[in-house]
Amino acid sequence: MTRADSQTRSRAPGRQDWSTWPHYNAAAAGFRGYWYPVTWSSHVTGKPTGIRLCGDAIVLVRDRGTVHALHDRCPHRGVPLSLGRREFPGTLSCAYHGWTFDLADGDLVAAITDGPRSPICGKARVATYPVAERLGMVWVYVPIAGEDAPPIDEQLPEELVGTPFVMGGRIDDRTGNWRFACENGYDEGHAKYLHRTSLWRLFKAMPTWNVTRIEQRGRWIYRRQLEQYWEADFPGLGRWTNKRWWKLSPPAAKDGAASNIGNTGAAKKVDPVIAAQDFPGFASVSMPGVLRIAYPGFIHYEFYVPVDADHHRYVGVMVNFLEGAATARFYLKYLGWIRWLFHGQFSGQDAWMVDVTDAPPEKLYRPDVSLTAWRGLAEKDYTAKLAAVENPAAPKNKDA
Amino acid sequence: MTRADSQTRSRAPGRQDWSTWPHYNAAAAGFRGYWYPVTWSSHVTGKPTGIRLCGDAIVLVRDRGTVHALHDRCPHRGVPLSLGRREFPGTLSCAYHGWTFDLADGDLVAAITDGPRSPICGKARVATYPVAERLGMVWVYVPIAGEDAPPIDEQLPEELVGTPFVMGGRIDDRTGNWRFACENGYDEGHAKYLHRTSLWRLFKAMPTWNVTRIEQRGRWIYRRQLEQYWEADFPGLGRWTNKRWWKLSPPAAKDGAASNIGNTGAAKKVDPVIAAQDFPGFASVSMPGVLRIAYPGFIHYEFYVPVDADHHRYVGVMVNFLEGAATARFYLKYLGWIRWLFHGQFSGQDAWMVDVTDAPPEKLYRPDVSLTAWRGLAEKDYTAKLAAVENPAAPKNKDA
Amino acid sequence: MTRADSQTRSRAPGRQDWSTWPHYNAAAAGFRGYWYPVTWSSHVTGKPTGIRLCGDAIVLVRDRGTVHALHDRCPHRGVPLSLGRREFPGTLSCAYHGWTFDLADGDLVAAITDGPRSPICGKARVATYPVAERLGMVWVYVPIAGEDAPPIDEQLPEELVGTPFVMGGRIDDRTGNWRFACENGYDEGHAKYLHRTSLWRLFKAMPTWNVTRIEQRGRWIYRRQLEQYWEADFPGLGRWTNKRWWKLSPPAAKDGAASNIGNTGAAKKVDPVIAAQDFPGFASVSMPGVLRIAYPGFIHYEFYVPVDADHHRYVGVMVNFLEGAATARFYLKYLGWIRWLFHGQFSGQDAWMVDVTDAPPEKLYRPDVSLTAWRGLAEKDYTAKLAAVENPAAPKNKDA
Repeated sequence: MTRADSQTRSRAPGRQDWSTWPHYNAAAAGFRGYWYPVTWSSHVTGKPTGIRLCGDAIVLVRDRGTVHALHDRCPHRGVPLSLGRREFPGTLSCAYHGWTFDLADGDLVAAITDGPRSPICGKARVATYPVAERLGMVWVYVPIAGEDAPPIDEQLPEELVGTPFVMGGRIDDRTGNWRFACENGYDEGHAKYLHRTSLWRLFKAMPTWNVTRIEQRGRWIYRRQLEQYWEADFPGLGRWTNKRWWKLSPPAAKDGAASNIGNTGAAKKVDPVIAAQDFPGFASVSMPGVLRIAYPGFIHYEFYVPVDADHHRYVGVMVNFLEGAATARFYLKYLGWIRWLFHGQFSGQDAWMVDVTDAPPEKLYRPDVSLTAWRGLAEKDYTAKLAAVENPAAPKNKDA
Repeated sequence: MTRADSQTRSRAPGRQDWSTWPHYNAAAAGFRGYWYPVTWSSHVTGKPTGIRLCGDAIVLVRDRGTVHALHDRCPHRGVPLSLGRREFPGTLSCAYHGWTFDLADGDLVAAITDGPRSPICGKARVATYPVAERLGMVWVYVPIAGEDAPPIDEQLPEELVGTPFVMGGRIDDRTGNWRFACENGYDEGHAKYLHRTSLWRLFKAMPTWNVTRIEQRGRWIYRRQLEQYWEADFPGLGRWTNKRWWKLSPPAAKDGAASNIGNTGAAKKVDPVIAAQDFPGFASVSMPGVLRIAYPGFIHYEFYVPVDADHHRYVGVMVNFLEGAATARFYLKYLGWIRWLFHGQFSGQDAWMVDVTDAPPEKLYRPDVSLTAWRGLAEKDYTAKLAAVENPAAPKNKDA
Repeated sequence: MTRADSQTRSRAPGRQDWSTWPHYNAAAAGFRGYWYPVTWSSHVTGKPTGIRLCGDAIVLVRDRGTVHALHDRCPHRGVPLSLGRREFPGTLSCAYHGWTFDLADGDLVAAITDGPRSPICGKARVATYPVAERLGMVWVYVPIAGEDAPPIDEQLPEELVGTPFVMGGRIDDRTGNWRFACENGYDEGHAKYLHRTSLWRLFKAMPTWNVTRIEQRGRWIYRRQLEQYWEADFPGLGRWTNKRWWKLSPPAAKDGAASNIGNTGAAKKVDPVIAAQDFPGFASVSMPGVLRIAYPGFIHYEFYVPVDADHHRYVGVMVNFLEGAATARFYLKYLGWIRWLFHGQFSGQDAWMVDVTDAPPEKLYRPDVSLTAWRGLAEKDYTAKLAAVENPAAPKNKDA
């Protein structure tokens, strides 16, 4: 998508609904057919725990080291299996009548209260979900129609596969639709206004407005700032700027003048792993709602995990590509302030807006090119995925 | 409407629904096309505040002395404008992306995060509402279809326009439909039974039952008590009265006998302003739900402000037509006991009933002539208003 | 119904809904046409109290010793009569306008605020419900279509009519549909698994699984345990038993072997009244949701009283057929531990499951013969009742 294209689209008069993106419009409870991080690995033990993901009730339980995920509903009388316990290794028994399911395939292998030769055995089952553990978290695949899950490494951000790193993160249950959270994360426009009061930016000015281009590489779209304006005079109203005397001046910025920054200047301090990715922009997003912000020296990720139409789970992760003793410095930095200022107060401002956003109807403006590009990406990616599920033999259309 | 008429109507067997008054029946969220008091003037400052009125979300903000009211929803992404702030004089900016609206006409005059030449400017707006300040309160006009507001003084009780007075009041958010609140306020029947235990009436007896006539003058209908009975013998059940040895005896009342009081006896102490109005009755009501109780020496008003179908705002005001040093005595009296006994406990008994009233279906009795007359007034008044909005050139039919 | 029949039915593949039992399926808010215990007699005084039963709002009030039940809604304006008071003997007056209803027939006998000759009198009424007092509780009959109530003694468990006894009991408001509560109570399967951890069973083992036959006698169906198995080896999983070294061994049970117990062994200690009933089984159930568990020496009853589709009232009663000084021992036992362990913690486990049960869809297994037999009983009993109400002259079909 060229810049001209996207600007034409965002200026289209009267766009009020999401009918341009029918799958996206229908995905209130999330897109099925993707892996989602749902909780910290350390939180999943031998005692079952129930979660909700894309509207599905799911029970997680760890058995001899391996995490299993099953539909959290006993087919007998609808009681949640997360209230049960493991009576035998490799199984989970319903708290009510002791219906016992194989954790690996969900088959009913025993109905304790009907004895060893119960005729119901082998005639009932619960759905299971593919599970993986990455980044210290449990990931669950939500199938579209019972299809096999693709390898999770194909979906993880490429730089997180096979590279050593350290990380810190925060998982919060939040109110509001996951799409508002994702759109907020990738949104080019709001940061400079909403977050102007954040402690995270207390000593660092933000521009007033930008000229932005969206570029796609593989399954990611990147937001490239072509021009940044640190001050602006609004006719008949007055001057507006984020700059304060106590805030760090922007690099090479002259008042009211444009500075072409791309990410070349800021990329100086980027470590080798990141540089190797050759990111064309600071912020990028991919399906099913993964935000990547490449700061100099570390990368911040946000995963917007759909719980149901009105709730999502915010998973924020800060990653540093370090090894050995240097990792101690990262943990100090993360626990000392990143966790509280960035994953806390800064991200809390986003949560506030996501909670009160109410669209469609909506009326888009020029910086919403980032939103419409993301919706277009989601629409195309999911359409291809649907085709692949319906016709597994056909070659995948992976590129845009 | 004559007394015979109204009694025939109220005796109509089997009246169960409100189909006789179709506009009234449809006005669950209030009648549009009227001014409503919404909050104390002192509560509206430079910091925006959100209210709900007739189901509309409205943001109020004071700018250089003047109160403005706008639809409380940014057209961009649906975020309430009441979360925003005034970045420039005469404007309100949305907290999310800095969309900035002119307070006077609602036009989008700047989108801060898209720079001074943002193409969206002039292409979006939010609805504004006419605002006035009277009686120390902010009043908002809710239009039917974007029409101009009539002068508020045409709607205010006549005696409050151009006359000096002092007042005290109370604003409470209450549960229940505004029509139940208004009907309760004007209801002839309940006071003598429901309020028999109120502290406000601790030393003053109330009659057991009355004969009442409803008379219309201009846009008000008045409740005239033709006969009052202080005791009654119910066949087969027993005697019932509100009289107690410690309560003040009614003027010139003989046990079980009727006393024609009109308001001539009680009007002796009425001050000149009130007397000049020549009220034909103690209690009167007008659209859009304004109750006026003319006590000797002061007038009590209740405004039943529709919030949504299930909530209303009770605005109770006590007015005394005094000037100079005498006003101190009023404030002493109001803050000393009127506020707590009348606007508090007495009115709280009404709030209790309004909350549990559940009609239609209903079955009306003779004293409900006050209810049906009020509904008839509302129906006629609003019908005329609708006609005037649809055909502004036609002369107004103001009289009944 | 024979055992073969019921097992065939419960093994029917794919039974997922309740369409086999249409009346039962429709009875979410309870079956009308039966007596229900609603509260302790001592809780109904001269001050009206509102309850909900089968979805109906009902006001209970005691007048000169007799309890009356009326529809809890004044026909005038829909205000609950339970907010009112008795102004005259034998009547209840609405709190709002003093509409006064005869407690015996619900007729409007006075409208206080309209005087003694109010034309509304005799033109309005509220529905009344038949009331009885038994077992220290108030019972209310909920009619299908205004029909007369049958004598309550025809519906009470036979052994409670005309026999001296002592009792203790507990009434709890609980979440969940009354049918889940009743099915849980009569359910053959869950007790041995769900209640394995109950304190009530701390020193007494329960079998692992049973072979059960359902037998009908009159209006009750009985659950007869033909075989009991105290241990079981589940192929590929392991052994499972409720037996512990500190628990009382089952009578005449050999490990892994079946013991035919019927109720002959346990019946040794049964007192003469119970023995005379010649119960063919330990647990029995009858309409409209009455569970009877015949322990040696006493009987436990549970009444699952429908409040609305999502709530029920649990009425648990323990009865001992004693007279004279021996009753002291029962009260000591009941208040000392039965109340806390059985009517408290044990029954609380049931309440937990009833709250989370979510069916249909469901998938039944062999022990659910008790559920399907109960549903069949309910369907047949209610069908006969409906026919009797529609054609009162026809002879009742009381037997199965």
